[in-house]
Amino acid sequence: MTTTPPPPHSHDGIRAILSPRSVAFIGASEDRNKWGGLLQSLLAKFKYAGAVYPVNPKASTIQGLPAFANIRDVPGPVDLAVISITVDGVEQAMRDCVAAGVRAVMIVTAQFAETGPEGAAKQARVVAIAEEAGLPMIGPNCMGILNASENLALLNSTALLEFFDTMPRGRIGVASQSGAIVGAMIARAGHIGAGFSSCATLGNQAGLKICDFFDYLVDDPATDVICLYMEGADSIDRLFSIARRARAAGKPVLITKAGRTPQGERAVASHTASLAGSYDAFVARCREAGILVQTDALQMLLTAQALQSFPLPPVDGVALFSGSGGAGALGTDALSDHGLAMAELGAETRAALAAFVTEANQQLPYDMGAVVAGPGKGRPDVIQGSIEPIVRDPAVGACLYIMTPQGRMPEIAQLFTELGRRHGKPCLVVNSASGITEAMRLALIELGAPFFPSVQEALLTVKDMLWLKHYQAPEPVALPALPAPLAQMAQELGTGLLSEDQAKKLLAAAGIPTAEGELAADAEQAARIAQAMGYPVVLKIVAEGVTHKSDMGGVKLNLADAQAVRGAFAQIAEAAGRAGVRFEGCLVQPMIQGDVELMVGAVHDAQYGPLVMVGTGGTLVELMKDVRLLPAPVSPRAAEQALRELRYFPLLDGYRGREPADLAAVARIVHQVSVLAATLGPRLAELDINPLRIQGARAVAADARARWVATTE
Amino acid sequence: MTTTPPPPHSHDGIRAILSPRSVAFIGASEDRNKWGGLLQSLLAKFKYAGAVYPVNPKASTIQGLPAFANIRDVPGPVDLAVISITVDGVEQAMRDCVAAGVRAVMIVTAQFAETGPEGAAKQARVVAIAEEAGLPMIGPNCMGILNASENLALLNSTALLEFFDTMPRGRIGVASQSGAIVGAMIARAGHIGAGFSSCATLGNQAGLKICDFFDYLVDDPATDVICLYMEGADSIDRLFSIARRARAAGKPVLITKAGRTPQGERAVASHTASLAGSYDAFVARCREAGILVQTDALQMLLTAQALQSFPLPPVDGVALFSGSGGAGALGTDALSDHGLAMAELGAETRAALAAFVTEANQQLPYDMGAVVAGPGKGRPDVIQGSIEPIVRDPAVGACLYIMTPQGRMPEIAQLFTELGRRHGKPCLVVNSASGITEAMRLALIELGAPFFPSVQEALLTVKDMLWLKHYQAPEPVALPALPAPLAQMAQELGTGLLSEDQAKKLLAAAGIPTAEGELAADAEQAARIAQAMGYPVVLKIVAEGVTHKSDMGGVKLNLADAQAVRGAFAQIAEAAGRAGVRFEGCLVQPMIQGDVELMVGAVHDAQYGPLVMVGTGGTLVELMKDVRLLPAPVSPRAAEQALRELRYFPLLDGYRGREPADLAAVARIVHQVSVLAATLGPRLAELDINPLRIQGARAVAADARARWVATTE
Repeated sequence: MTTTPPPPHSHDGIRAILSPRSVAFIGASEDRNKWGGLLQSLLAKFKYAGAVYPVNPKASTIQGLPAFANIRDVPGPVDLAVISITVDGVEQAMRDCVAAGVRAVMIVTAQFAETGPEGAAKQARVVAIAEEAGLPMIGPNCMGILNASENLALLNSTALLEFFDTMPRGRIGVASQSGAIVGAMIARAGHIGAGFSSCATLGNQAGLKICDFFDYLVDDPATDVICLYMEGADSIDRLFSIARRARAAGKPVLITKAGRTPQGERAVASHTASLAGSYDAFVARCREAGILVQTDALQMLLTAQALQSFPLPPVDGVALFSGSGGAGALGTDALSDHGLAMAELGAETRAALAAFVTEANQQLPYDMGAVVAGPGKGRPDVIQGSIEPIVRDPAVGACLYIMTPQGRMPEIAQLFTELGRRHGKPCLVVNSASGITEAMRLALIELGAPFFPSVQEALLTVKDMLWLKHYQAPEPVALPALPAPLAQMAQELGTGLLSEDQAKKLLAAAGIPTAEGELAADAEQAARIAQAMGYPVVLKIVAEGVTHKSDMGGVKLNLADAQAVRGAFAQIAEAAGRAGVRFEGCLVQPMIQGDVELMVGAVHDAQYGPLVMVGTGGTLVELMKDVRLLPAPVSPRAAEQALRELRYFPLLDGYRGREPADLAAVARIVHQVSVLAATLGPRLAELDINPLRIQGARAVAADARARWVATTE
Repeated sequence: MTTTPPPPHSHDGIRAILSPRSVAFIGASEDRNKWGGLLQSLLAKFKYAGAVYPVNPKASTIQGLPAFANIRDVPGPVDLAVISITVDGVEQAMRDCVAAGVRAVMIVTAQFAETGPEGAAKQARVVAIAEEAGLPMIGPNCMGILNASENLALLNSTALLEFFDTMPRGRIGVASQSGAIVGAMIARAGHIGAGFSSCATLGNQAGLKICDFFDYLVDDPATDVICLYMEGADSIDRLFSIARRARAAGKPVLITKAGRTPQGERAVASHTASLAGSYDAFVARCREAGILVQTDALQMLLTAQALQSFPLPPVDGVALFSGSGGAGALGTDALSDHGLAMAELGAETRAALAAFVTEANQQLPYDMGAVVAGPGKGRPDVIQGSIEPIVRDPAVGACLYIMTPQGRMPEIAQLFTELGRRHGKPCLVVNSASGITEAMRLALIELGAPFFPSVQEALLTVKDMLWLKHYQAPEPVALPALPAPLAQMAQELGTGLLSEDQAKKLLAAAGIPTAEGELAADAEQAARIAQAMGYPVVLKIVAEGVTHKSDMGGVKLNLADAQAVRGAFAQIAEAAGRAGVRFEGCLVQPMIQGDVELMVGAVHDAQYGPLVMVGTGGTLVELMKDVRLLPAPVSPRAAEQALRELRYFPLLDGYRGREPADLAAVARIVHQVSVLAATLGPRLAELDINPLRIQGARAVAADARARWVATTE
């Protein structure tokens, strides 16, 4: 009876949960309104083939099966024990499971850590038992799991209870920190004919974690596409290392993560940190890893279904088909809203269409209404002949059919999907008559083809598929040892804000061109320095604790002569008095001319590590919000790509008569900052270069600030 | 037999179409695959109560009714004749209808103007017959009409054919330039239980126009909410004048208009015109008129259904309910994405909730899972007691319930809707398990309550409802007679681009502060002018045909002495040479200091009339795209509101230590420009003030350009 359970967190441990040969219910019941009763009834409903053992000391049979007083009394080996008794009995039940040699447990029972310290203590005792025995455990407060190919439903979902007679089988694997989200996905899957390999809901994650299941799904031969729903995010490095394995295995990974909304203001000193929230950092890491971040779990399901149904689009052009001119016109607008491009049909395609539609109709958006109502009145050969040339056209990467109610909808939709398969392109159907055209819905489900309730959702999926097509794993970036002067500084700097001078020394040591400055203690000294430096110059306040110098009147630009310098010095001193800061003097710097101002920054996120930011700079960065955030380090090529994605990129590219910037030089600076961030790690808590002034081939850090955290390492 | 038809375009004419006491089918058929046969069968299917007369010379009975060889043979009076014979017979059929004294006709037959010149000629002949006889006509190429309360379906829709047994009755009236879009709306309506008063699809609009039906629906006692789908936009002034009537009648108007995507580059000289596309102008006029512009016809239906089901939200706060923590977290993020604010529950509400849920759960988003699974296990009194305090809370304007599959969904959804009605607030249900929970769907339909397939769609509806709540009709703005100098200029200006000097004279005459300048023909003269004016100054190129002076190096700012002025003059002359323009000299102007640069412009749209634009200015306006477009004239108050809606509004409001701008002064300038545009009409084709430099209380037009169209009036 006593076997050794598989190592917890191992694939074997998870297999005992998702693919058990036998299931025991501790807390079994005739009452289907109770968890034990409900889950057992689902095994019977879907004809689970393994052994089932109800455990309940008060009954001799339950739901037609012999019941046992204790798990230790069960005669055969138990792979999975499902515990759904009251919270105070769980500890003993766990000991019984250990004694009985069960291979894994799923604890449905709630009232543990989620309720407060008392529950947390109970949970800790349960975890200790599992850990001591090496017993794989999912839960507590877990809504259950599903393995469709083995007819194993241990999950409370209305869809499973009321609407499905057979399992929603497919090749989408799900692991989720919310049970209800999985319930909703299963319900929607039933409607659109999507299906799953396995789903796991994690509950309190006291034993097995979401990453354990993620790791398992990467190796699961029944899974082609992986969907994760996350709330917290622990084991971040593990998450992304598994994502790399998934990528290597050719399995797309989609993640929906709650908590995008910024949680109020955080106390940060730099623009970079104020613009880079924790969710943004998460997204940056996901994008780097080739993970599709989704904002809605049902959209995630739709995209996953498309990914398991079709290959990625071979090219970017989209061919829009519609049931009417009106739907086509609205769809064209929506396409453009999503930044997608309508394909240009080739001459050969138009010639092939000429046999079926008038010249006015030989274009995109393609009006299927004209085909159905036109000559041939929608004969199958006419429909196929008038669709296939478009699907086949080399300029077309993906097709979208916005179906409005009309004749022959099911046939067209079915053919459309088949042609997509045949020519290796996603062909997605938008069912604008959702829920009404049952025949069509069933035909598509039969084909395993995704259909979309709205044009928006279909376009989001196309966009995602194109993103995956273009995704390239980042080039590895070597991290050199800290140059000697930098290593020296790193030893000496104390925790807190660095002065502009210190921040620039850091940059200079990293090889980044900075505007040199000289400290002047009084107006006369400032004028002398300026004279030696050459006009025009800039004066900037030096005073401890001032982070945003411009805002308090501490920066005077473009000073053309000694008189201007003296005046500016006096004004800055006055501003310092008003602001009540300890005025130490002014930095005198040459005025760097620049056509464009960028911001380049770095931030060390406690969860997501070092990140580099590049964006449109100046004093309005927070209003402009035109930034890209990337995990550090980045290659110069990735940095240039980020520059090209900026809204104001045209400014670097010769916009309206400007001198084009040396993009490679700017990208190199972003790369250097990212290397600095990655090398210094948490010591460089925040860094802003703002502005990085750019004029043609020259790019100079005109101002910089940083926050340093001294470490004892 | 011969009665006089009602005046075409009159309500009586439309009533004969939408509410006929008798219908004749010219082109009647036993074959339901033919239009005549199909539409007649729909009258029988839905038990239309009026008289039905099949007309077909080849049959004695059709679909069980006696058939007549010609419309003139029909014994009773005919309100509506539906013509669906081949195109070449329509002319004769129309003559027969006139002779028979029918009151209105609907021409289903296609192959008219939509096919080219030959069809257009045929259409013109048919129209001539109708006009001569004063016969109201809808079509040709018309997909039909629906009047749900009279069981009149003369519309080819899959939903009507296959899925409805009773009419989709409700209080939404629809007029559409696309038949298929109405078909899709009807299908979706069936799914969500929405319903219609009347729907009309316009076909080629050769007789009755969309505005005729719009006008009718405003007065139609069966219609509460009006939806229009438009492609072209003729009779714009009529459209907006009817919209004002609808507003007065308390009937919300929603319009979806295709053709948002810009149709390539247009040849325009000003930033304002390049930023104000024709669709933007349409939207600006709609917003002014209180019309809700929609980008998707099915979203329009969802919002219309909410509007006919609930009053507008009394306050802005939204209360989010969810079936689980996960759905609540994602919903909170989505709420914030849409710029909506979660309500703060009052102490009284939290106290009332304390009887039912733990303290952690007495907040928004409200986790219904805790209610259903918690103590009381979802007893009806527990559910009601734990929802109603939130709906009643004065901080809550609208409620959204994101339902994931769980126990008691139908009861909760039903109760939720009822509470919304009771407390006069929209309570919208998102059915994340769309198409699955039939019991719930049917319960909601029974209640006439809207439910939403996705959180996005529900949030768009809440946003729309809040917009309607805040909408205020614009204050009337008096248009003064042109001041004498302006009237003089208006006489003298020729068609084409105005010089900066001319444009500024126009502004000055309208009372708008401008930076004065003086023309210098050579460098020495420039230096003399600058000396007299006081440094620093600006030099700007004067040369015919140069519109964007900065782009070609024709502007030099902040010149501090005579030497700088001479150097700048030489550089500008050189730039003129490079650009190959005829250099006439430079304008010397005082350098206007400014913390903020705005753009204020005007454009006269051929369809939508004079519009005024305000936005963030400078040389990057087209990249920034931070503008508001309003129909001219606008009141100072409306102008200030537009300023407040700008992304960069904080710059005017003391952002980061800036001197706050005198908003009233800036708004007055926008108002003055709008009055100028409205008074000058099409003569002022385009105007840019860019930049309008603002420093505290001072706002000065530092540069201006305009395009003038001379008229003979």
